[in-house]
Amino acid sequence: MPDLKGDERLDYLLAEELRIIQSPTVFSFSLDAVLLARFASVPKTRGSIIDLCSGNGVVPLLMSAKTSAPITGVEIQERLYDMAVRSIRYNELNKQIVMINGDLKDAPELLGQEKHTLVTCNPPYFLTPSDKEINLNEHLAIARHEIMCTLEDCILSSSKLLKQGGKAAFVHRPGRLLDIVTLMRKYRIEPKRLRFVYPKQGKEANTVLVEGIKDGAPDLKILPPLYVYDEQGEYTEEVRTILYGDAPSLLRR
Amino acid sequence: MPDLKGDERLDYLLAEELRIIQSPTVFSFSLDAVLLARFASVPKTRGSIIDLCSGNGVVPLLMSAKTSAPITGVEIQERLYDMAVRSIRYNELNKQIVMINGDLKDAPELLGQEKHTLVTCNPPYFLTPSDKEINLNEHLAIARHEIMCTLEDCILSSSKLLKQGGKAAFVHRPGRLLDIVTLMRKYRIEPKRLRFVYPKQGKEANTVLVEGIKDGAPDLKILPPLYVYDEQGEYTEEVRTILYGDAPSLLRR
Repeated sequence: MPDLKGDERLDYLLAEELRIIQSPTVFSFSLDAVLLARFASVPKTRGSIIDLCSGNGVVPLLMSAKTSAPITGVEIQERLYDMAVRSIRYNELNKQIVMINGDLKDAPELLGQEKHTLVTCNPPYFLTPSDKEINLNEHLAIARHEIMCTLEDCILSSSKLLKQGGKAAFVHRPGRLLDIVTLMRKYRIEPKRLRFVYPKQGKEANTVLVEGIKDGAPDLKILPPLYVYDEQGEYTEEVRTILYGDAPSLLRR
Repeated sequence: MPDLKGDERLDYLLAEELRIIQSPTVFSFSLDAVLLARFASVPKTRGSIIDLCSGNGVVPLLMSAKTSAPITGVEIQERLYDMAVRSIRYNELNKQIVMINGDLKDAPELLGQEKHTLVTCNPPYFLTPSDKEINLNEHLAIARHEIMCTLEDCILSSSKLLKQGGKAAFVHRPGRLLDIVTLMRKYRIEPKRLRFVYPKQGKEANTVLVEGIKDGAPDLKILPPLYVYDEQGEYTEEVRTILYGDAPSLLRR
């Protein structure tokens, strides 16, 4: 067992046969992070990958199963960074995944500008609220609200990190879609793939996945929709595969 | 029978129990126009509606079944304008629908600025190609390529025509989505509703419907996807209803 602190627990990342440290009061990863790791064009071997707003390291952990390229996660909260480091060590991925406890605005300076192949980012979704509305739990507040970084900070840092032809993948709420694509174009990341996630058929999308290419030519594709739940309120086959892996892998348990 | 010219024929608009003059060599309406007429927030009684790039008047004809508000269609090609006028007369809708044979860039001057409730536009989809690539059929070339007007012309004219709070609805290819939403914002039409049309499940979207509100607050909704064909290659139930009306209406035939 790893060294668990407070109410932390060791959860499964089933499809990847990994384990991850989480805590209901500090940070637990969301389905959105899993979808982002699956959606991003992860290079199989070459290049280098940066994950911004890395939280407990869920996106680097998930991507490590798809690539042998080095992955660096950047997380500003020391408490979450620490969870990520322990999970990486527990999964014996120290050689592939490095965590940085720092501000993503410093990442290009620290990790190299115009250098990386892929940047992923699951940023805080909510604009900074007034003091009285803000989540009283500081860890959750920073992870969910634009307190430490704005959407523009995330996209600007991503662009600086990427080499020409490198890709950046983001997940966010549809209400911010226009801001995201406008900022991506402003910082030379041309949106190329959009995928909308719907809670179920007949409902509006509640999540958007977008990937762009630095200095790419305009040519946006709208991928097939992704439904999370079926009519019975169960995960759809696609989401089950993303979360739990293919059937043969499940049978191995 | 109306006065038909050349290879024109009188086709049905089944769901609306209307007839429309078309010609395979001059102009036939597309499914996209039908989807646009159904997608747009047509006011039931009040206000006034303008349809730009009106072609043979299919969008005004379809919208007339949903509203008692006056509708003006603007079409630059005299040949198509003439088809529209004859269809409107045949359906005895002269009192509700007026066609203008003119340039949409002159429409705000002609029809009144900051005055109208809804503008619809199914613009030419393709950038003006080189001389040798262009469609040799002049009518089809003008309807499909940005020869007489650009996307920016369409959106600028729409914005000028609309009163504050008025709505503009467009249909286009996903490859131009970012240009559309950027131009809409540039001309004060805030995108509010996006709907993607997929030829069938598992395929990329090939059409996008977007509606915005003049001087509206940012709050974009991504509506459920619309599939055109089912697994058997037949129209889906939703498209059949849009094209042919509800079952009771079909039974009446």
